[in-house]
Amino acid sequence: MKSTAILALLAAAGIAGSAAGAERPRFAIDTEAVYDPAAVAPYAGHHPEVYAHVDASIEAHVAALQRWMRQPSISAQDVGIDEMAEMLRSDLEAIGFQETALVPTDGHPGVWGYYDAGAERTLLVYMMYDVQPVNPEDWDSPPFEANLVDHELGRVIMARGATNQKGPQRAFLNAIESIVAVHGRLPVNLMVAAEGEEELGSPHYPQIVDAYEDRMRTADGVLFPMSVQAPDGRTTMLLGVKGILYFEMESRGGDWGGPQRSEIHGSYKAIVDAPALRLIQAIASLTSPDGNTILVPGYYDGIRPPTEEEQMLINGAARSRNEEMLKNAIGVARFIDDLSGRDALVETLYMPTLNVDGIWSGYTGEGVKTILPHVATAKVDSRLPMGLDPDEALAKIRAHLDANGFEDIVIRKLSGYPPAQTSVDAALTQAVIGVYNKYSKGLSIQPRIAGSAPFYQFTDRLGLPLVPAGLGHGRGAHAPNEIYLVEPGPGVPVAGLAEIEKAYVDLLYALAGK
Amino acid sequence: MKSTAILALLAAAGIAGSAAGAERPRFAIDTEAVYDPAAVAPYAGHHPEVYAHVDASIEAHVAALQRWMRQPSISAQDVGIDEMAEMLRSDLEAIGFQETALVPTDGHPGVWGYYDAGAERTLLVYMMYDVQPVNPEDWDSPPFEANLVDHELGRVIMARGATNQKGPQRAFLNAIESIVAVHGRLPVNLMVAAEGEEELGSPHYPQIVDAYEDRMRTADGVLFPMSVQAPDGRTTMLLGVKGILYFEMESRGGDWGGPQRSEIHGSYKAIVDAPALRLIQAIASLTSPDGNTILVPGYYDGIRPPTEEEQMLINGAARSRNEEMLKNAIGVARFIDDLSGRDALVETLYMPTLNVDGIWSGYTGEGVKTILPHVATAKVDSRLPMGLDPDEALAKIRAHLDANGFEDIVIRKLSGYPPAQTSVDAALTQAVIGVYNKYSKGLSIQPRIAGSAPFYQFTDRLGLPLVPAGLGHGRGAHAPNEIYLVEPGPGVPVAGLAEIEKAYVDLLYALAGK
Repeated sequence: MKSTAILALLAAAGIAGSAAGAERPRFAIDTEAVYDPAAVAPYAGHHPEVYAHVDASIEAHVAALQRWMRQPSISAQDVGIDEMAEMLRSDLEAIGFQETALVPTDGHPGVWGYYDAGAERTLLVYMMYDVQPVNPEDWDSPPFEANLVDHELGRVIMARGATNQKGPQRAFLNAIESIVAVHGRLPVNLMVAAEGEEELGSPHYPQIVDAYEDRMRTADGVLFPMSVQAPDGRTTMLLGVKGILYFEMESRGGDWGGPQRSEIHGSYKAIVDAPALRLIQAIASLTSPDGNTILVPGYYDGIRPPTEEEQMLINGAARSRNEEMLKNAIGVARFIDDLSGRDALVETLYMPTLNVDGIWSGYTGEGVKTILPHVATAKVDSRLPMGLDPDEALAKIRAHLDANGFEDIVIRKLSGYPPAQTSVDAALTQAVIGVYNKYSKGLSIQPRIAGSAPFYQFTDRLGLPLVPAGLGHGRGAHAPNEIYLVEPGPGVPVAGLAEIEKAYVDLLYALAGK
Repeated sequence: MKSTAILALLAAAGIAGSAAGAERPRFAIDTEAVYDPAAVAPYAGHHPEVYAHVDASIEAHVAALQRWMRQPSISAQDVGIDEMAEMLRSDLEAIGFQETALVPTDGHPGVWGYYDAGAERTLLVYMMYDVQPVNPEDWDSPPFEANLVDHELGRVIMARGATNQKGPQRAFLNAIESIVAVHGRLPVNLMVAAEGEEELGSPHYPQIVDAYEDRMRTADGVLFPMSVQAPDGRTTMLLGVKGILYFEMESRGGDWGGPQRSEIHGSYKAIVDAPALRLIQAIASLTSPDGNTILVPGYYDGIRPPTEEEQMLINGAARSRNEEMLKNAIGVARFIDDLSGRDALVETLYMPTLNVDGIWSGYTGEGVKTILPHVATAKVDSRLPMGLDPDEALAKIRAHLDANGFEDIVIRKLSGYPPAQTSVDAALTQAVIGVYNKYSKGLSIQPRIAGSAPFYQFTDRLGLPLVPAGLGHGRGAHAPNEIYLVEPGPGVPVAGLAEIEKAYVDLLYALAGK
């Protein structure tokens, strides 16, 4: 279509908004070697007295989960936050944490706990005690009654926070309670550093780290209790997350032109600039016409390609990937450029994105209304792989807009944090794999996921490996009828609450090398 | 910045979405001659018996206006429509129209009336009997009580429809009522062809014309009763309107890509197409980066430049143009390209526009929500000067989108009609100017306005000149506290109701050459 000479000229002329020559890097997978988690020896330890204690206490353990879930703790609405923070703190104290405290922040308080086992190894446990809001009328069982309900998978607790994240977290505490009850002390030292603002994007978690940074650095790794089993029993391990930059772009009439006070009659467009068109042009300048390649100069430059370890993990993850199931689940007929297999996986995990989460301006009702709106706004996010920092990304976007004459477009940053990555070779990761191999039917390891979480506080700031881990199954996070499976029905090959807790028992001993 | 050679190459390569080489035509004004309406002789006729009847009947005439305004007729909400249509029909009958009828359409009914004066000349009167909706709590006086209220300009009626359009229209009927009362018959034949859907964009007016087309063609011109005096007494005459094309553009996930069922998690953007970005790119491809030049091939090709007559009118209109007042009124710091004077006027009246009236997609609330929306929609209008037909405009836009790979963008046409133009030399126009020159302090003639009205039904389809005309002042159309001035206060040089009616009396006699 376009000759190379023209493309060269275009590049030389720096044509604004042209897609000419813009391409996403394609990272090659140089190896056919596959990381095989099955090659990690299953955890060989056995702690029958503790397991027996778990089994004997299971009614009380279920009740402990229900007690947490019956305490609302909706961070967005400040409902029950202080009560839940205190419940967590006093639970830690009751278990035997010598040190517990509420941690003041500029938002909801954190909770700190330290259990000194006099052990060599120390595990830092990240927890969140807040939950999403609810529409009670959408629920089959009231969201804060935490009733036991019969489900196709078995006996479940239905409650807001059931799986996200009270169930797995309290299951972890049940496990250590049984260890302490049987053996008097834990095999590792524990730090708990919990927040009440995860559902708000963790805006003040850095302040919690500030308060205990030196001590946190001495930990050997970070566990985020999470149930990661699918209904067929398979487990998935996530070793990394993308970072995110989230901002609003706005065009508003001003000295540059456009109506400043309010919308005006649409016929004035002939001689009056349109903020809506300016915003549309500014956003359009950021991507290729298909919306899939970012045209901001240098945006792809620093991205770290998959390491050899990650390539082996990708080769493994590609084997267990079911693309048709994924397409069906999200209602998508085809992926961009008809990507599939490893290519789709590398694109998903290693490319930064530019996405419009929302845009609004002017008249959005039925029929015809002819106005020239004075303001137009969009919400935009960019998911960031390793090698692209949010502040750097924002600076590049700003520079691109300015260079293309869009100085009048206002950017308001709402959130931003870098990606996080943990190595499969970390002692914590290996211990978790060993425990999974003891209990579950098959483990797939994702070198990272396309979503974001502020785990960089641990991986980058503290230099610690972080693994979200735990057996069991829950679903319905952020939705009505959230559940946590406590007693799987016949033939459902998923861990119930007792097995979830036994696996956490094993994990602590595995970390201690026992 | 860019060399001519590169621009030529760009043009040859047909670079999608690039502004290179795209320019709006600039129409030159070749003459310094000015059309001077003051050179038209003031209407010299005098009809003292009729004027006396108007003065003696003024209380009843005010009451007739109030009776109309007290009858709600909100077309958008179907409130009082049938009652108002019948009130207009029976008023025409009472005045002496030999023929009156409700005209069924696929929407609200039209009203037809014919007054056979046995005269040589026939005037067609376009009327609208519907009004805009109201928010009664925003009004100082209830919108359908039509109370007489003291205002800084004098005595006014405050009501929905006061100036848009019941006041001027009923004033016109008062005038002919007085002529009939005094002389027994009118000096011209009258046709009335009213609609009840003007505020909806006149979707069924063509059906009303269908019913009486052959007879309407025999008229000598079309009057739209309208009060066009400013508070300082100056009158403005509008000889043309732009046409309009109004449509929605939508991108929705489908076979081409993107989520089809609902929004999905924003992190999927890495491998899933984004309808919001597609819509933004498609709209962006329509204009230059500043949003002010339309890049659709051929969009400017057929535009008719100002005729010599129009150039003389533009020279006149430019003299009375107060740009600072206009900028202040609409809250705009500068016009596009810092246009002013005649250039601004030509741009306003002769360039087609592309305007985004509204756009919406995804999450538009407070804070952060990371989703990939499955649908994005915009409302777009294009104002059309003479030489650009709405269907032709739409076809060019569709072809441009298809040629640039945006076949997946759906266009839904909501409205469209061509522009309309009347010559200043038409007999009706000259008669109106003569009457204005008798009564008012200064007339400025706009060859056309930037806004739109479906007057093409008269000018193009029936080949008739159309003039919106009448003395007097009202304000607040489509807004709370709409008023019509019936009795100007001391020192306010605007016609009151009696003078408005006398000027309509004169106009009918002027048309008859009497």
